[in-house]
Amino acid sequence: MKPTEITIGEYLIHRLYQSGLRHAFGIPGDYVLGFYKQLEESQIKIINTCDEQGAGFAATAYSRVRGLGAVCITYGVGGLKVVNTTAQAYAEESPVVVISGAPGVKEQLGNPLLHHKVKNFDTQLKVFEQLTVAQTVLDNPATASQEINRVLDAAICYRRPVYIELPRDMVAIKITPHETTLQPPDVDKGPFKEALLEAEAMINQAKQPIIIAGVELLRYGMHQFLQKLVEKTNIPVTSTLLGKSAISERHPLYIGLYKGGLSQENIRQYVESSDCIILLGVLLTDLDLGIFTANLDQGKSIYATSEKTSIRYHTYPGVYLNGFLLGLLKANLQRRETTEIPHAPALTPFQPVPNTKIRVERLFQRLETFLDDHTFVIADTGDALFAAADISIPRATEFMSSAYYASLGFAVPASLGVQLALPTLRPLVLVGDGAFQMTGMEVATAARYHLNPIIIVLNNLGYGTERPMLDGSFNEVYPWQYARLPEVLGAGKGFDVQTEEEFEAALEAARDYQEGFCILDVRLDPYDFSPALRRMTNVLGKRVK
Amino acid sequence: MKPTEITIGEYLIHRLYQSGLRHAFGIPGDYVLGFYKQLEESQIKIINTCDEQGAGFAATAYSRVRGLGAVCITYGVGGLKVVNTTAQAYAEESPVVVISGAPGVKEQLGNPLLHHKVKNFDTQLKVFEQLTVAQTVLDNPATASQEINRVLDAAICYRRPVYIELPRDMVAIKITPHETTLQPPDVDKGPFKEALLEAEAMINQAKQPIIIAGVELLRYGMHQFLQKLVEKTNIPVTSTLLGKSAISERHPLYIGLYKGGLSQENIRQYVESSDCIILLGVLLTDLDLGIFTANLDQGKSIYATSEKTSIRYHTYPGVYLNGFLLGLLKANLQRRETTEIPHAPALTPFQPVPNTKIRVERLFQRLETFLDDHTFVIADTGDALFAAADISIPRATEFMSSAYYASLGFAVPASLGVQLALPTLRPLVLVGDGAFQMTGMEVATAARYHLNPIIIVLNNLGYGTERPMLDGSFNEVYPWQYARLPEVLGAGKGFDVQTEEEFEAALEAARDYQEGFCILDVRLDPYDFSPALRRMTNVLGKRVK
Repeated sequence: MKPTEITIGEYLIHRLYQSGLRHAFGIPGDYVLGFYKQLEESQIKIINTCDEQGAGFAATAYSRVRGLGAVCITYGVGGLKVVNTTAQAYAEESPVVVISGAPGVKEQLGNPLLHHKVKNFDTQLKVFEQLTVAQTVLDNPATASQEINRVLDAAICYRRPVYIELPRDMVAIKITPHETTLQPPDVDKGPFKEALLEAEAMINQAKQPIIIAGVELLRYGMHQFLQKLVEKTNIPVTSTLLGKSAISERHPLYIGLYKGGLSQENIRQYVESSDCIILLGVLLTDLDLGIFTANLDQGKSIYATSEKTSIRYHTYPGVYLNGFLLGLLKANLQRRETTEIPHAPALTPFQPVPNTKIRVERLFQRLETFLDDHTFVIADTGDALFAAADISIPRATEFMSSAYYASLGFAVPASLGVQLALPTLRPLVLVGDGAFQMTGMEVATAARYHLNPIIIVLNNLGYGTERPMLDGSFNEVYPWQYARLPEVLGAGKGFDVQTEEEFEAALEAARDYQEGFCILDVRLDPYDFSPALRRMTNVLGKRVK
Repeated sequence: MKPTEITIGEYLIHRLYQSGLRHAFGIPGDYVLGFYKQLEESQIKIINTCDEQGAGFAATAYSRVRGLGAVCITYGVGGLKVVNTTAQAYAEESPVVVISGAPGVKEQLGNPLLHHKVKNFDTQLKVFEQLTVAQTVLDNPATASQEINRVLDAAICYRRPVYIELPRDMVAIKITPHETTLQPPDVDKGPFKEALLEAEAMINQAKQPIIIAGVELLRYGMHQFLQKLVEKTNIPVTSTLLGKSAISERHPLYIGLYKGGLSQENIRQYVESSDCIILLGVLLTDLDLGIFTANLDQGKSIYATSEKTSIRYHTYPGVYLNGFLLGLLKANLQRRETTEIPHAPALTPFQPVPNTKIRVERLFQRLETFLDDHTFVIADTGDALFAAADISIPRATEFMSSAYYASLGFAVPASLGVQLALPTLRPLVLVGDGAFQMTGMEVATAARYHLNPIIIVLNNLGYGTERPMLDGSFNEVYPWQYARLPEVLGAGKGFDVQTEEEFEAALEAARDYQEGFCILDVRLDPYDFSPALRRMTNVLGKRVK
């Protein structure tokens, strides 16, 4: 490509493609139509969702799998619909590029009342300054390429969303781009060396070290190095809810999920009695710490994140997760004897009890044996997440949720992003009826692009997480016949499930039906909660009033 | 009520009720559950929507009819989903109170990572500062009642959205409220008198004055005074798109809609050749001015708004629409002779042509005769709006749209707000298939609360407004069988409409079926546009590239 023959829009597309992006999610509008035309003519495929919210969630899921995602929308009515999804991407570290069309620079002169304008022309930019790590308005051809590079580099470096506003009269302006490549920051060898030596000694002296795997291992693609560290040292490993599947949950050194006081008791004891707790990329959130019931002794902890590393009570500001983990792999860590550690009970084949209403606990028991290496589990917020937390995911990275920001309605649109990024896997979506009613119609987008998620609607006619906290008619959800949606969409298969046998039969039929999506409407008792949810809401409920 | 026996939450509810609010729209979450319980026990009815976006749009529509609306949601995942609907309410002057739950003041100490938090605890507040006219966080019992009064007064005074954040540990704190009532600003009699005298002389000297009615007459409930002014003076009246139905469009002095160069030619000529143009509450937006093709001579204009009044080229900063209009009614304005003015052609009974595919133009011809005094028309953005602009609305105030901010997906949820505010009317919703797929499932909320809108889906398999501007596969919308939705929802009636006769039959059946919603899936040719849309996109399309 000759550098002088590229337009601003094309350069943006070029850089996105170069960074691994192959799909962009969104809905067009007149301020972004010109850029959509450029996208259509590029190697990046546009995925039209039903609503911008769906596009935002899909792009977030895509970014987690591929290292970059993009949502492309029009000004105001498009951009301001992805505020919540961008907030989730910020909170949970997902590198989504929000590309918004805008009125042309010339159109904005004199500050006229153009459609889709809220207050001032920079209102949308100011909103996104609160939700992104870098922002730019491409209103100057002289700096456009550098601005694109700066903002995309920030998304990739910090694994957080960024905002690019593209006035429509700039899209086709030709520029001579300043190609730059991301320069990794110079590692200051001093603190790095000191931190590693200290950690090495502390780990080698420990009798019962434990690794807690956090979400940043997934976001930075470091899960394979985690596995190497575990196997090199024979140190057992747990993970947090948000970090779930940072290692295969059927790995012999994996002891199960740590959720503070909400953990299984043997796991809690093992972790909290450890004399060396190695936290790798963990966010210290309420949901990851069992609503702060976790009892981890900082004086025995090594805590590495993408922002800094701490050992006991002191901090190494310049030492980051990735380098620290790679350093540990090279460090002189002794290999330990195999000791007795907690283990999840072995999977037992599920035998449906005839004429028995399906219950949450049994449903998840069955699901655990249903999972194989080709299934990617996506759990929405609610019991879909809390119950799923305890089932073991066969392969690393193949579980996704919004287990910190906890936005309802993430899972169905996320399945679009996951399957487009990983076409050989089949998404298994766990979603409550309340969450489904927010964004579940994005299953139409699955139909449009010939994707085939299996969607299990945990239909308990309400917001089940709230019922045990404080109940009222406001926790009720209106009944839909979810299994009839294939008739509305002219695609997919629907299943009504009331009993264990029906669930078994529907799962098997769904496994066999590869041509499109399957939706299982699983009718649960409104007050049937998983034991995990019950423990969680016992603690959460105390804070409600 | 004894003033010392009220909690902060109850006081907020008390003031909302006192201001005319009877319904609040939203979805609960743990940070707002305590307040939901208080709402449930109050005289304000909670309306649960499927998604927060639907609640935001419904509250906006409700606020336009009743003078105040409320959307009540949880922190982060709820609040940040109503950013776009609040932006619309700001741009189009609708007094919506956004009430967001939040972590307790005590929980926020030490800045922990609580679920639903984005970056800092004030991130959401900072976002809403961009979109509202007043904001408060009720974190101090000593000032809470005054803060509630200040913010609600601002909503009512400016007809714009406001933001109230309620930390959950404040909900049940008892306070001694400082009751205050809104003090109307002292009118400075000087500028007011001068402006009125000048206007009076200018109008009386004019040969062909014309009144242009704008949206603020609707928002401030001044439409009846407009009608009085018109009938007192015999001055003909037009309105803008956003001001549509500020006066009955079957009033003998109504000449039809003015849209600049996109108007019917005889209307355009009449308005633009006027020697005294009286603009009342008009927003000078691109869509109201025919994409700035309007040619209104400021040197012949009197322009009153809620913010100021201008006559010719000078401005009276302290003179506002309401006072000015009431002043005009008392002024010494001469009554004019009846003259020849443009008139819409008389309604002709619709006779379906057998075996003829329905076309956009014919569809709206038929609809015009279908409207009666009990129908409230809500038009979504797109041809649903542009074509509807030219059909005459029988009664004042009974047309609603998003004709400036132009957010797709407003109409279906808006119908909830309209019918709850005006239970004797039946909403007729006009919505494109693209817009329906964003929020149309809120028809489930209509079913839940036994509302009965008639929803006409203009199904042209795409974003019809964009096709004539710049076409591509990104303008396509995946086909749904909208008429099958009653099977999913266990309520309502669906109709497949392909021909004129089927449309006629479906409309009649819908009129007879009062028990629930009706949805008409009207299959249109993808390239069948109304003449109004064609004119609009000819002008808009030039700006796309």
